[in-house]
Amino acid sequence: MPLADDVQIVSVDDHVIEHPNVWQDRLAAKFKEAGPRNVKDENGNDAWEFEGRRQYNIGLNAVAGKRREEFGTDPTRYADMLPGCYDPKERVKDMDIEGVHAQLCFPSFPGFCGSTFFNANDKELAAACVTAYNDWMIDEWCAANPGRQIPLCLVPFWDIDATVHEAERVAAKGAKAISFTEAPHALGLPSFHTTHWDPFFRVCEESGMPICLHFGSGGAPSVAPEAPFTAAIALFGLNSQMCTVDLVNTRIFERFPNLKVALSEGGIGWMPYILERADYTWERHRFYTGMADARKPSEIFRTNIFGCFIYDDAGLHNVDRIGVDNIMFESDYPHSDCNYPHTRKMLAESLAHLPDDVCRKIAEDNARRVFNFPRS
Amino acid sequence: MPLADDVQIVSVDDHVIEHPNVWQDRLAAKFKEAGPRNVKDENGNDAWEFEGRRQYNIGLNAVAGKRREEFGTDPTRYADMLPGCYDPKERVKDMDIEGVHAQLCFPSFPGFCGSTFFNANDKELAAACVTAYNDWMIDEWCAANPGRQIPLCLVPFWDIDATVHEAERVAAKGAKAISFTEAPHALGLPSFHTTHWDPFFRVCEESGMPICLHFGSGGAPSVAPEAPFTAAIALFGLNSQMCTVDLVNTRIFERFPNLKVALSEGGIGWMPYILERADYTWERHRFYTGMADARKPSEIFRTNIFGCFIYDDAGLHNVDRIGVDNIMFESDYPHSDCNYPHTRKMLAESLAHLPDDVCRKIAEDNARRVFNFPRS
Repeated sequence: MPLADDVQIVSVDDHVIEHPNVWQDRLAAKFKEAGPRNVKDENGNDAWEFEGRRQYNIGLNAVAGKRREEFGTDPTRYADMLPGCYDPKERVKDMDIEGVHAQLCFPSFPGFCGSTFFNANDKELAAACVTAYNDWMIDEWCAANPGRQIPLCLVPFWDIDATVHEAERVAAKGAKAISFTEAPHALGLPSFHTTHWDPFFRVCEESGMPICLHFGSGGAPSVAPEAPFTAAIALFGLNSQMCTVDLVNTRIFERFPNLKVALSEGGIGWMPYILERADYTWERHRFYTGMADARKPSEIFRTNIFGCFIYDDAGLHNVDRIGVDNIMFESDYPHSDCNYPHTRKMLAESLAHLPDDVCRKIAEDNARRVFNFPRS
Repeated sequence: MPLADDVQIVSVDDHVIEHPNVWQDRLAAKFKEAGPRNVKDENGNDAWEFEGRRQYNIGLNAVAGKRREEFGTDPTRYADMLPGCYDPKERVKDMDIEGVHAQLCFPSFPGFCGSTFFNANDKELAAACVTAYNDWMIDEWCAANPGRQIPLCLVPFWDIDATVHEAERVAAKGAKAISFTEAPHALGLPSFHTTHWDPFFRVCEESGMPICLHFGSGGAPSVAPEAPFTAAIALFGLNSQMCTVDLVNTRIFERFPNLKVALSEGGIGWMPYILERADYTWERHRFYTGMADARKPSEIFRTNIFGCFIYDDAGLHNVDRIGVDNIMFESDYPHSDCNYPHTRKMLAESLAHLPDDVCRKIAEDNARRVFNFPRS
């Protein structure tokens, strides 16, 4: 009897499309003009304008409910997507349809970890945009459906002091996790091999907020310019593989043993290979690299790093090689990988070979424990 | 009884350290001065000089027989390595010690696919260096041990006509495979999604020479600058994952159904995940990308792409998800991943859970079939 009826599916990677007034509703008067505003372009498409530049939501990022033949990379409009993409009351109805009890949503316009604001010219405006997003996430998006939405917040990561301050502020306000870049070095910031981020890690550890590292939050693997977009999408998990190998070759978790890291939307089927490979190379190279006394990479992974999957037969047939406590589920609503409205059915099928207690951990309990989000 | 005594292990990824006179013995008089010559530097280390620049062989690339505590990235000398690294008669003795019957060797100074020559200023000299390497590989390195060395040659891939000509020349001379770049687009050349390489693919298909794409022959994943070298080494397989996803999203194997590609030193444990992921994304994105009528990625893989492993428990416990005919073994002598002198023992142990006929395919038969290198 896999996935018993009383299991409440907790999805740890979904996406919200911000409604047109998220920032205009909250920014101080001096920031309203340059801050994010939603406009209709000359083709009738909805576009974000921010600091004079325009940005679109592409169709692939709001395909829930569409046929595959309708998928594409063209700009999309609010009117063309399910209202659940941007309306919290409609979202919870879609969650009921797909059989998901609670979910954690990543931003769209800001980028997975707020890179749109990181790239802004006016960093005071950018920090105000982060604060506005966080307030909207907690006070509006999550407050509309208590017990159904796990509040995930951003930090102004270009400024470590402001990052610490914002992390403390949102923790006090009820945030359950922080979205951060999986590859700070790729953005020109200090890497995970420095102590630069320690004050931020300390806040996260002390407040019990895991750090969510969404694939692509530090750039994406480069594919051939003529390759179909399919190739780039198939390679999403490589970001998480790089991030995992990076993290297990640091001393971060010696300094912060209770810090938890979630690899968001990275898949799990590669984990048996990468963990074995990380151990194999650590065994051979730890002497000249000064890591002889470090913990074994796979041991670090099991205590501090967590993955998630949408549909991953290879991973779910190798659960013991990953760690039964390290696997969580994600729906990915409303992106192109999601199986809405068949989410619960697909998950139940993909777990059918596993014992009931393992199914329960993967579908609900691991996520509730990692994100400190008990049944209400 | 896994790995019966009569199984002759065929390793499809090993490395040769070129002896000091490979090029000086063969280059025309006008090229000798600028061509590769081996010199002693001020510290007594052996260095290659080529077009006025100096290049070293690092210690990690010649560690066979050394303890892990002796591993490092400093320059090494011929006198510090096993003579089997560069002397063909000594190599075959080391192969007997590690229990490997036949092997395929990649170059060192030229780079896996000849990138040292690709980066040369004088492309006429560079092409002469490729020819000299190929002649040495066939006439000296392989000729010294018939039936024990599989001749792998290079092509001057910056010039498609010269590439076709050299591939035809070495095929007629007995070459069994060509080493090529896994990511031509990353080197600024036309990608696998163009028809630029078709004349070369045609020669390889018609002559039955597989194309070997060694990880790193198109660049490596970027890791944090402060990361221990261990991280970069653990991520080798990502190159092969990218290359696989690239290739299965092309029409190359519709045009050349008998062309074979070997992913050299890329590992196999990631294959179940990547093949599943490539199929999953192809199913969803094939309409707007014009690939609706293409073959399924995993089907292309099974007929045309082959992987190899050194020690890969995750892969060898998922053989059916990869394809029992798509897996080959490699020793990696004399690099830091190799298990010399325990190669045969380690392979036997890692195959112990598999049926005898599967062990035989993986340890010998697949490689003999793919490389058209029957028992002599």
